Amino acid sequence: MPIRTADEYIESLRGRNLRVYLMGERVDEPVDHPVIRPSINAVADTYRLAEEEPDLASAPSSLSGRRVNRFLHVTESVDDVVMQNRMQRRLGQRTGTCFQRCVGMDAINSLYSVTYDIDQAKGTEYHSRFKAFVARMQEENFVIGGAMTDPKGDRGKPPSGQDDPDLFMRVVERRPDGVVIRGAKMHQTGCLNSHWLLVMPTMRLLEADRDWAIAAAVPVDHGNITYIYGRQSCDARALEGGEVDLGNAQFGGQEAMIVFDDVFVPNEYVFMNGEFEFAAPLVERFTSYHRRSYVCKTGLGDVIIGAAATIADYNGVTKASHIRDKLVEMAHLNETIYGNGIAASHESKPTSAGNYQCDDMLANVCKHNVTRFPYEISRLAQDLAGGLMVTLPSDKDFDSPETGPILRKYLTGRPGVSVDNRRRVLRLIENMTMGRNAVGYLTESMHGAGSPQAQRIQIARMMDLPSKQALAKKLAGVDEDDGDGEQA
Amino acid sequence: MPIRTADEYIESLRGRNLRVYLMGERVDEPVDHPVIRPSINAVADTYRLAEEEPDLASAPSSLSGRRVNRFLHVTESVDDVVMQNRMQRRLGQRTGTCFQRCVGMDAINSLYSVTYDIDQAKGTEYHSRFKAFVARMQEENFVIGGAMTDPKGDRGKPPSGQDDPDLFMRVVERRPDGVVIRGAKMHQTGCLNSHWLLVMPTMRLLEADRDWAIAAAVPVDHGNITYIYGRQSCDARALEGGEVDLGNAQFGGQEAMIVFDDVFVPNEYVFMNGEFEFAAPLVERFTSYHRRSYVCKTGLGDVIIGAAATIADYNGVTKASHIRDKLVEMAHLNETIYGNGIAASHESKPTSAGNYQCDDMLANVCKHNVTRFPYEISRLAQDLAGGLMVTLPSDKDFDSPETGPILRKYLTGRPGVSVDNRRRVLRLIENMTMGRNAVGYLTESMHGAGSPQAQRIQIARMMDLPSKQALAKKLAGVDEDDGDGEQA
Amino acid sequence: MPIRTADEYIESLRGRNLRVYLMGERVDEPVDHPVIRPSINAVADTYRLAEEEPDLASAPSSLSGRRVNRFLHVTESVDDVVMQNRMQRRLGQRTGTCFQRCVGMDAINSLYSVTYDIDQAKGTEYHSRFKAFVARMQEENFVIGGAMTDPKGDRGKPPSGQDDPDLFMRVVERRPDGVVIRGAKMHQTGCLNSHWLLVMPTMRLLEADRDWAIAAAVPVDHGNITYIYGRQSCDARALEGGEVDLGNAQFGGQEAMIVFDDVFVPNEYVFMNGEFEFAAPLVERFTSYHRRSYVCKTGLGDVIIGAAATIADYNGVTKASHIRDKLVEMAHLNETIYGNGIAASHESKPTSAGNYQCDDMLANVCKHNVTRFPYEISRLAQDLAGGLMVTLPSDKDFDSPETGPILRKYLTGRPGVSVDNRRRVLRLIENMTMGRNAVGYLTESMHGAGSPQAQRIQIARMMDLPSKQALAKKLAGVDEDDGDGEQA
Amino acid sequence: MPIRTADEYIESLRGRNLRVYLMGERVDEPVDHPVIRPSINAVADTYRLAEEEPDLASAPSSLSGRRVNRFLHVTESVDDVVMQNRMQRRLGQRTGTCFQRCVGMDAINSLYSVTYDIDQAKGTEYHSRFKAFVARMQEENFVIGGAMTDPKGDRGKPPSGQDDPDLFMRVVERRPDGVVIRGAKMHQTGCLNSHWLLVMPTMRLLEADRDWAIAAAVPVDHGNITYIYGRQSCDARALEGGEVDLGNAQFGGQEAMIVFDDVFVPNEYVFMNGEFEFAAPLVERFTSYHRRSYVCKTGLGDVIIGAAATIADYNGVTKASHIRDKLVEMAHLNETIYGNGIAASHESKPTSAGNYQCDDMLANVCKHNVTRFPYEISRLAQDLAGGLMVTLPSDKDFDSPETGPILRKYLTGRPGVSVDNRRRVLRLIENMTMGRNAVGYLTESMHGAGSPQAQRIQIARMMDLPSKQALAKKLAGVDEDDGDGEQA
Repeated sequence: MPIRTADEYIESLRGRNLRVYLMGERVDEPVDHPVIRPSINAVADTYRLAEEEPDLASAPSSLSGRRVNRFLHVTESVDDVVMQNRMQRRLGQRTGTCFQRCVGMDAINSLYSVTYDIDQAKGTEYHSRFKAFVARMQEENFVIGGAMTDPKGDRGKPPSGQDDPDLFMRVVERRPDGVVIRGAKMHQTGCLNSHWLLVMPTMRLLEADRDWAIAAAVPVDHGNITYIYGRQSCDARALEGGEVDLGNAQFGGQEAMIVFDDVFVPNEYVFMNGEFEFAAPLVERFTSYHRRSYVCKTGLGDVIIGAAATIADYNGVTKASHIRDKLVEMAHLNETIYGNGIAASHESKPTSAGNYQCDDMLANVCKHNVTRFPYEISRLAQDLAGGLMVTLPSDKDFDSPETGPILRKYLTGRPGVSVDNRRRVLRLIENMTMGRNAVGYLTESMHGAGSPQAQRIQIARMMDLPSKQALAKKLAGVDEDDGDGEQA
Repeated sequence: MPIRTADEYIESLRGRNLRVYLMGERVDEPVDHPVIRPSINAVADTYRLAEEEPDLASAPSSLSGRRVNRFLHVTESVDDVVMQNRMQRRLGQRTGTCFQRCVGMDAINSLYSVTYDIDQAKGTEYHSRFKAFVARMQEENFVIGGAMTDPKGDRGKPPSGQDDPDLFMRVVERRPDGVVIRGAKMHQTGCLNSHWLLVMPTMRLLEADRDWAIAAAVPVDHGNITYIYGRQSCDARALEGGEVDLGNAQFGGQEAMIVFDDVFVPNEYVFMNGEFEFAAPLVERFTSYHRRSYVCKTGLGDVIIGAAATIADYNGVTKASHIRDKLVEMAHLNETIYGNGIAASHESKPTSAGNYQCDDMLANVCKHNVTRFPYEISRLAQDLAGGLMVTLPSDKDFDSPETGPILRKYLTGRPGVSVDNRRRVLRLIENMTMGRNAVGYLTESMHGAGSPQAQRIQIARMMDLPSKQALAKKLAGVDEDDGDGEQA
Repeated sequence: MPIRTADEYIESLRGRNLRVYLMGERVDEPVDHPVIRPSINAVADTYRLAEEEPDLASAPSSLSGRRVNRFLHVTESVDDVVMQNRMQRRLGQRTGTCFQRCVGMDAINSLYSVTYDIDQAKGTEYHSRFKAFVARMQEENFVIGGAMTDPKGDRGKPPSGQDDPDLFMRVVERRPDGVVIRGAKMHQTGCLNSHWLLVMPTMRLLEADRDWAIAAAVPVDHGNITYIYGRQSCDARALEGGEVDLGNAQFGGQEAMIVFDDVFVPNEYVFMNGEFEFAAPLVERFTSYHRRSYVCKTGLGDVIIGAAATIADYNGVTKASHIRDKLVEMAHLNETIYGNGIAASHESKPTSAGNYQCDDMLANVCKHNVTRFPYEISRLAQDLAGGLMVTLPSDKDFDSPETGPILRKYLTGRPGVSVDNRRRVLRLIENMTMGRNAVGYLTESMHGAGSPQAQRIQIARMMDLPSKQALAKKLAGVDEDDGDGEQA
Repeated sequence: MPIRTADEYIESLRGRNLRVYLMGERVDEPVDHPVIRPSINAVADTYRLAEEEPDLASAPSSLSGRRVNRFLHVTESVDDVVMQNRMQRRLGQRTGTCFQRCVGMDAINSLYSVTYDIDQAKGTEYHSRFKAFVARMQEENFVIGGAMTDPKGDRGKPPSGQDDPDLFMRVVERRPDGVVIRGAKMHQTGCLNSHWLLVMPTMRLLEADRDWAIAAAVPVDHGNITYIYGRQSCDARALEGGEVDLGNAQFGGQEAMIVFDDVFVPNEYVFMNGEFEFAAPLVERFTSYHRRSYVCKTGLGDVIIGAAATIADYNGVTKASHIRDKLVEMAHLNETIYGNGIAASHESKPTSAGNYQCDDMLANVCKHNVTRFPYEISRLAQDLAGGLMVTLPSDKDFDSPETGPILRKYLTGRPGVSVDNRRRVLRLIENMTMGRNAVGYLTESMHGAGSPQAQRIQIARMMDLPSKQALAKKLAGVDEDDGDGEQA
């Protein structure tokens, strides 16, 4: 029975007996843990959107012959790539956080073409295996998580040069029926909330790194996997029992460390096994998709712009020209990101395997602006919020009979604005600029899908200076064979 | 006989006996004037590109049933809108300046749908007249210039409120067979290099401004028109006889003031006549197209990046990480503009008239970045150029037997780089950041298609704060009917 | 017996029976509360610095004839003003947070000259009262807190126009021996950690606001005062028992709301009482000092630059040029702030009362940069920190026998770097960019001493456009009496 | 007879028979050349200011025992250093350009202490020679120009490694009574307008470069010197005969290349001769002074802000909030530069020789902002100017009976504003952002006193990361001897 609704999705996560550690303790049932649950709600919304707006969040797949959640869809047209961005922005707007499914979506689209290319070069049969795997996921309507980032140890050395070979995920045993893998993946988005994980190499590999060239699918509830939950700014507020101080009580992101302690993977779930020369293309295609997927942050941007406009309204200053101007600047920056993202998608080209790959330059440019503009949007939101955002007493002080009335007396603003609504909006801005969802809106915007320098390196690769220099030289009348000795 | 080649285009401009004034004197033959000729060369390159890359710079038109220059093409698909941007970037790369034909292209696409809408609302027949006009232009392969910007006089007053009613272009007489118009259009790009001008109102009009609601086509060589040429930074260098100091000797832009001294326009060339309420839609559609057309500046950006990379190479510093990083930043900013422009085009929607109109938000965002990023790109180019760019002696000093050898001795840089090539590249950077083509690359980027504040106003209109506020309120748990008195 | 040491200071705060509420409960003894204590430690460091570096943090006062803590010193020379900035930066470096005493220092320097001016104008005797008060504080070596920011209610209305007159602090009763005041002061820095509070009006007042024109000193432990503690990002981590996750376990800032429920103030502690026309000068002089006092943030900037450099070192990437370049940028921005601050102080002029007042334009410029640069420095610090900063498991997970060894295995970086040191530095960066001290480093930098727009208004007042226009007109050869009708 | 007035200064330049080349021709009398004269006027204004405001622009010198022009003054107090900045800003305001005397002022202050240090180390007698030289200059009231920047040839190689040894200024012959020097100095500010030049090495030298370690004074009219004038944007407008199109008709900057063709320098004018290890300190002290001297650009900033405010006034838009806000931003950036400059001066310390040397970090920070903010100020000025700035017809068109009346009719703006005043202000903005004085306001701001990267290198040297890291480690509780193996 496939999962059909958001509620069924949540139920599907129960009783899996995952080994999850959080704040020093093993978590009984992640679904019911107050720190974890908001992240599950965010993923659940991807199911809800597919119910509510099927054109946006689902698509007919020729792999399984059925309409599938768009996060499980291998793109079959340029429009399919663009629609991912529209869906991502919409979910960002609905959740105000990271909804965690883009990694899986971008991973299946990358592996789709890379497995094809390996097969063409090596005579392997990864592509058909992979198609069968994706079709099965579509049939079950499962969440696929990606798992790419290795711990890396000493960054000056390759996998094969590390003192501890496990610092990159590797094959420790090859059997006729499959492989045994060991290692860890760092800060993996939504991993607990997934059903299957796609393990992939984290970077370009050389021949000596052959044992580290492994791509495979693993069920999240495999017994040899341990999850250690990352803590986020203000996460402990979820344990206090209230709602207001959370800012966004319903939705949150999730990152955890995944430790694979000799996990056996049957052959049918192995999609790369030693073909080290394909690690680089896989990483490049994945990051290209994924850098453009950061368009989701424009959905969060819409929320924070809305929150800033609301607090300005509650403060009675919407007509001040500088307030209006700051909102315009926030919108301008937000749409600049969006434009670059969808441009990358609109400029997609078919791969040899037949799915569609976005434009790499524009994808990198999109992500690079994501490492800058959300910070400025947040700064402007804090400007509009006023200092009260960081000096507001706790929800419990508002509930207390001793301090509640005093607070309500003195925090009264312009007529018609409730003190409680005012602080809810302030807490939302705090949540997105300093609290739990600042992790997703800011720091993940910085480092997810590659840190800023990774984009600069990629832009440098693609900016094609020689052709630009030829343009300039022609217009300047440069003659490098002019007898003046020029040989550059 | 239609114009077929760049050379034929140039010939078509000769002998028109235009009344053109430049530096205080009437110009005999603009085609041969050294200050004017580079601007003609730039337009000619739009013909040359159509010959060399017909897929890029021409398109089959269903209006005339023939393949036409893309600048004369009414868009028939989303792809047609996107292809405009590709062509614009390419021409920017080829000329390093403003090639002047976008105004006409954007004007015909705007008038195409607005004339249709007027006819629908008023029962007029502007649309068929307009289609016939465009088809004739296509058949002749003419250049259409736009003419929109009025002098405006006292900016606090509408056309009908000015002391001198001529400060906005207006109908001074209505006859059965046509209208007589009077007024001026300021800083009109490429007007002298056009065959016909499309006169349009410059802004939203009210009922009292009915006589100023005029859109019409006028031949450039009409006897009652006077052109007064605008001067540009360093324009006088074109009179010195040399080539190097020009930086870009072949190509330049053109703006002139056009004075219409009671010009009679027959009815067949009148496309709006008193329908004041359609002035605003016309201006909005035109500026929307045109703000996205500023993607052309990414072509200039490619040239200046290429020039900066070349001078770094000539200076022997390409391996310095800060040099590389500045080039990456320039490319990143340039591609950010491009992404927003083509995104606006990719997101085009059909109008009621059937042609395609780009996305307004993204078009404004594109242009707004154009008012910022070329300035930063120029600053970085000057950084890479070094101070020599502004202290280099004149070309004549290099030619002089007394100073030439001294200069060549002391300006020798790394082996293999000729002094002459080095100064040519420096002069090109000067040209684009301070000289003639800085007018197009910087100041026109600022003010063309509307000054920065015009984009901010338009972004403010479209940013839809209420829907963003609703997103925020939902996530914050705001209840504005919570009995707390909130009525906002 | 005056307070002589940091420890004596801490002891002086005990047993005052303050009515303090925090997270819904009355706090027994603030000195021992884990959320509050770090803020006390920060103030204590102002005593410790005076012991360790007396030239920096103390000065001979002619008021009391003794060497006093510089925070209690009324400036007697330009150098005294500059030395405040040096001390502020040093304390920022030592604590990495807001050490809370600048408000009091700036308040006594402002009131010193304003009370003098009131006396001159009105024949009152505030100045001698005030000098006696300051001398007593110096003798006791007490901490003076300032209390300026009123709740303000409907921001479109003056104090006298509010529905609830208490929304600005006011005199509710005038007696022969003193006044009774009522109202609240919002987000008051370090109020609990002070011995006395200086109450001051929050803005320019008009005649109708006479009852709101009150400046007075009140002991912190007055029985009719209630304190409601503001909560900060991640404050609850202080309740968890560990140290590492706090980032900066020792030091923190403090803001609380102070409610004055009909507090009687004897005449000797009243320094303004109805002289509404002096509210504006008081606010202006105070904000001028205080905007320059934000130089303290360059001390925090030194810490965050040091933390970023350390994590880069631990990650083994200090030689990467982009890393180095980001550190330079951080330093450049930090020193830009510092330069403007000390320039404002160096340009101090004596007041009529004899103390020294800093340059207002430069003080505003300093603060205005503080509303921008710490955000960019934080962004760069997060860039250097890497994503691990927001995905690191909790301290308890590191202590756990089940997860601790796994974490230490997989988080090992380059040889010679301990995992624990690495996470400590990451937690410090989290603390300053998202956690408790981000309140002080970022949001307080935005809004303390006036939000950005307040500085822009003040810069606009002082930028003296007419004189700048005269310069331009002279150079341009403008003749506004040239018979051309110019009368501007 | 010393020079006493601006007019006497100008007369002192006549009849020197300098060998000056400009635009391919030898200049008869530079004083009367229309391209050169504005630069002479700018220097003359330094004399005029000394007459009009002696406290600002002169100082009592203990070297000559008389009151001397401040540009010839060796600083004797911190205040002397600060007063340089005040004078620089004032002259920037008066001239709107580079007044050319700072190089000499900064050179004498650097050489004063370096000659002292050489004597201390080497037993030479440069310091007394140098004092005698300066005293003589003071007595004559001469202009001293500096000459530091060598051509440098292949930048990857030291002076002694160049194919052509002349690419750095060098001693070609040592005689008992002096030395013979050969080489060139590039883009030397105000050299023609000086009476004496101080030749100095351009960078750190090694032992092999001993012959290039030469500092000496040379009279400008030495027969073996050739000057080749650098051309500037729009310089040819000075040859057109009009005034308006020049923007700033009276004042301009000057850079020229100076070629020393075996110039003999008597011993009394030699101040370093082979002491290569003192080249670095000389360059560092000079650049430190000189980077702070860029405070002059805030005077130009005042002019451009005034021009922008004036054109906004003429356009009738001064009340628009975005206009006001842009002016505030311009002022804020301008004052940020100023604050850093005077802070560097206020923080001066005495050298061993007794004069005062500014703070190096703040001087570098000041200059680094000068490489950024004037560009943004210019961008904003162009925003306020409107597109007319680059499309305005020539002055001759306004004078022409055919086009003048048309232009005056159509360029009429709001009542009371003359068309001629409007275009004068536009031309001034053009002059400063694209024209002749853009060379000084922008490109010289970028590269003078060292390009941006030179400041970054110097900031990196001084930012003292280890001490900042120690602060961070202490607060984070890092223990690098914690048995965990840390040895960093």
